[in-house]
Amino acid sequence: MSLTALFDPDSIAVIGASKTPGKLGNDAMANAKEFDGPVYPVNPSGEGAVYGYEFVDSVGDTDADLALCCVPGPATPEVIEECGAAGVGAAVVFAGGFAESGDRGRELQAQIRDTADEYDIAVLGPNTAGHIIPHRDLFSSFVPGFDEIESGDVAIAAQSGGVGVTATFQLDREGYGTAGMYGLGNRVNTDFDDVVPMLDEDPAAEAIALHIEGTNEIDAAIDAIDEADTPVAALKSGNRMAEFVEAHTAAPIQEYERYEQAFRDAGAVMADSLTELLDAGRVLAQCPQADGPNVGLVTAQAGPGIMMADSLQERGVTFPELTEETRERLDEILLGFTYDKNPVDTGRPMPEFGDVIDAVGRDDNVDIVLVYEIFEHSLGYPVEELERLTADIDKPVVFTVAGPDDALAEDRERLEELGVATFDTPERGAYAASVLAETSR
Amino acid sequence: MSLTALFDPDSIAVIGASKTPGKLGNDAMANAKEFDGPVYPVNPSGEGAVYGYEFVDSVGDTDADLALCCVPGPATPEVIEECGAAGVGAAVVFAGGFAESGDRGRELQAQIRDTADEYDIAVLGPNTAGHIIPHRDLFSSFVPGFDEIESGDVAIAAQSGGVGVTATFQLDREGYGTAGMYGLGNRVNTDFDDVVPMLDEDPAAEAIALHIEGTNEIDAAIDAIDEADTPVAALKSGNRMAEFVEAHTAAPIQEYERYEQAFRDAGAVMADSLTELLDAGRVLAQCPQADGPNVGLVTAQAGPGIMMADSLQERGVTFPELTEETRERLDEILLGFTYDKNPVDTGRPMPEFGDVIDAVGRDDNVDIVLVYEIFEHSLGYPVEELERLTADIDKPVVFTVAGPDDALAEDRERLEELGVATFDTPERGAYAASVLAETSR
Repeated sequence: MSLTALFDPDSIAVIGASKTPGKLGNDAMANAKEFDGPVYPVNPSGEGAVYGYEFVDSVGDTDADLALCCVPGPATPEVIEECGAAGVGAAVVFAGGFAESGDRGRELQAQIRDTADEYDIAVLGPNTAGHIIPHRDLFSSFVPGFDEIESGDVAIAAQSGGVGVTATFQLDREGYGTAGMYGLGNRVNTDFDDVVPMLDEDPAAEAIALHIEGTNEIDAAIDAIDEADTPVAALKSGNRMAEFVEAHTAAPIQEYERYEQAFRDAGAVMADSLTELLDAGRVLAQCPQADGPNVGLVTAQAGPGIMMADSLQERGVTFPELTEETRERLDEILLGFTYDKNPVDTGRPMPEFGDVIDAVGRDDNVDIVLVYEIFEHSLGYPVEELERLTADIDKPVVFTVAGPDDALAEDRERLEELGVATFDTPERGAYAASVLAETSR
Repeated sequence: MSLTALFDPDSIAVIGASKTPGKLGNDAMANAKEFDGPVYPVNPSGEGAVYGYEFVDSVGDTDADLALCCVPGPATPEVIEECGAAGVGAAVVFAGGFAESGDRGRELQAQIRDTADEYDIAVLGPNTAGHIIPHRDLFSSFVPGFDEIESGDVAIAAQSGGVGVTATFQLDREGYGTAGMYGLGNRVNTDFDDVVPMLDEDPAAEAIALHIEGTNEIDAAIDAIDEADTPVAALKSGNRMAEFVEAHTAAPIQEYERYEQAFRDAGAVMADSLTELLDAGRVLAQCPQADGPNVGLVTAQAGPGIMMADSLQERGVTFPELTEETRERLDEILLGFTYDKNPVDTGRPMPEFGDVIDAVGRDDNVDIVLVYEIFEHSLGYPVEELERLTADIDKPVVFTVAGPDDALAEDRERLEELGVATFDTPERGAYAASVLAETSR
C-alpha cells in the first residue's frame, strides 16, 4: 500500500461537501480550498458551487487521488467502494461510530478495511480529525482555522486526532508551524509503522512527535522508530483509562511500563506531557545532536539557574568542571564577582553576557550549552556572539528567556536560524537540555 | 518591626538615583516614578532632575518612609544609618556582595542588620530585585518593564529576586497581573515569616505563591503558612545545588524531603516547577474551594481528555460515577452516541456543550468540574451556561482550551469573572484540578 496520495496528492475530492456553515462537509471544504490543485466538492444534491468550486455528483466524475469522506459512518463503506472504482489512492474518514463503539461499528470498520485492501486505498482514520501538510497547502481536516497553520520542522502523528489538533494549535500559539500533522484515529490500514517511515523520508520533518494510546501493531511501530534516522519523541497516553481509551480509538489496553523501555531502546525520547512532547520535537529538530550529556549552564539570574540545574540533576544530567582556560576567561570577564563554576552566574544581564556564553560554549568539557536570561531591551540578545559561536562549534545551544511578551518575539527567529532553540520558562529550557543529553552520541 | 512602610509607603527616596540610562539608579527611578506620591531622587552629585523629579542631596532632606538603595554593597551600611536617622521605615537593598559571598560580605550584612534593628527598619534584601505592588502603583525594583505589570490576585514571595521577576513576567505574558511580588534575597530581617502574615492580611492577595531556597527561619515560615487563611502554594528549589544556592541568597542547605511534608501539613500545595507554582496560585485565587476530591471531567475531544484523566489518576484524584439523573440528562443531550460515563466525551465541540457541563456540574457526586474543549469560533464558549451554573453551584470549574491564539483571549476574562479558571494545555488544566482536589475540605 502506497501513502503517496495521502502525502502528496494531485487533486482532492471532498465527499459530502456542503454549503451549510457548521456542517462537516463545509468545514472540510473551507480547509481544502487552500490546496494548489483541483478540489472537487462531491454531493449529488449539491447545487452550484461552494467556495467557488462547482459541485460534482460523484467521485467517479473526478480525477481525485485523495478523498475526504465527510459522510456518516454507515455510509462510509459505499463511499470507499466508489473511491476504489474511481481510482482514488487515499481516503480520510472523519466519521466515528466504528471499532471504538461496539459490534456494529467493528463490522463497518471491517467492511472499510476489506474494500480499502481490495482497491489498495490508504485510509486515514476512521474517527480522525484528518491531516495537514502546510508546506503543500494541504489541509485535509474539518478543524476550523487549520488552514492558517504555518509550515514547520516537527511532524506530529497522533493516535487521537484531538491531541493532534491540540498539539498543532499549541505550536501555532507559540509561533511555530508543523511539517505535518497526521491524526491516525482507528488505524484501519494506516498505522504508526506506515506513517513513521514516510515521515522519516520527508525532508521537511526534522523531528517526529508521536502520540500513542495503543495499537496492535506496536512491535512494528517500535521497529519503525528504531529504523528511522529522524529523531523521534513519543508520548504514551491512556495508561490508566483503559475503558475510555478503548471507547476512543479502539486501542488495545497497553501498559506504559511495558513499552517505555522498548521505545527508549528504539531511540525515542519519552515525554510526560504534550508540552514536553512538542518541546522535545522542537529541540531535536532545531539543534545539532550533542556529543555527550555534559551541560554548561550560563545564567544571568542565579535563582532560575538553580531551578534548572536542580531539575537537570534529577534527570541525571552532569555539569562538568570547566577547563582552566575557560575559568581564566570567565574571571577576566566577570572579575571574580559572581559564580564562575558551572553553572556560571553573571548575577545580572550585562553587555558581556554573550562573551560568557562564548567562553562556556567553547569549553571542551561542555557538550550542551544552556542559557537563561531575563531580557532587557537596552541589552537585547547576544545574537552576534551566538552567530560567531555557532559558526565555530557544532554543539546545541538552548536559550531560555523570560521577560515581557515582546522580548520573546524579538530576535527569536534569528536565534533559531542559528540552530539556537528558545524556551520561555526555566523548566522547559531544562527539559530541552535533558532531551539533548539523553539523545547524545 | 512593622512592614507598613514596605507594604504601603507614603513617599519614596531613591538613594543613588542617576540620570545615566542603564545604571541601577536610573532603572529604579524609571519604575519608582509611577508612584502616586512624593518620589525623591537622592544623590549629592545629581544635578537638576531625573524623570521630572529634582535631585536632593540626602535622604535626611526628605520625608520618605521607603528607601530604595541603589548604592554598591560597601556603601550600604552608611546609607541604612542615614535612613534610620531620617526616620525611614523600610529599605530595599538591591546590591549583592553580602552574606552570599564570604566573610567580608557576612560582616557587611551584620552591620546592616544591627543598624536596621537599632532604627526598626524593615530591610528587603540585600541581593534582591525588590518588590512591586501594582495596585498601589509601587514598583520598587530596577527591572526594566516592571512598571507595566498589571494588578492581579496572586502574590509572589520569592527568595530569589530573579525567580520573582521570571514569575511576574510569566504571569504578564499570559495576561495576568500580580497582587505583589516580593524578592526576599538574603532576608536580613524580612523573611518568609514576616511576609506571609502580611500577605495573608492583604485583601488583594487571594493566593500566595512562595519560592524558597532555604532559610534559618524555616520553622517560623511553616508556622506562618499554617496560620494563614489565604491559600499558599510553594516551590522548594536548590535541592541538589547546595554550593550554588549558598552562593546565591546565603541559604542554608536544606533538603526538600525534610520540608515537603511539613509544608503540606501546614496546608501548602507543593509545586514542581515555576509554571505549576503560578498555576496553583492562580486556581486557588480564582476558584472557590472544593468540597472534595471528586472530579467530573467533560471533554469535547477524547484524546486530550484521556491525557488529563491519566495524569489526574496518577495524582490520586478520583472520577466518581455520575448519578442516574445526570446520566439520563446526558443521554438526552448526547443521544448515547459518545462516552457518557465520567469522563464525559462529547466527541466534538457542539452547541449543547454547555448543557453537558451543566449536567455534570450539578451532579452531587462531583466536587470539581474540569472541562476541555478545542475552541471553534462558530460555537464560542458556553459562557451563558457557565454563568447560570456558577450562580447555582459553589464548585470550582477549570476550563481548559486549545485553539488559535485569539480563541484563548476571547471571553477568557468573562469566564474568570465567573470564577472559572482557564488553562491552555491539557497538563496545566489537569494540574489545576489536582490542586483543587488536594486543597478540598
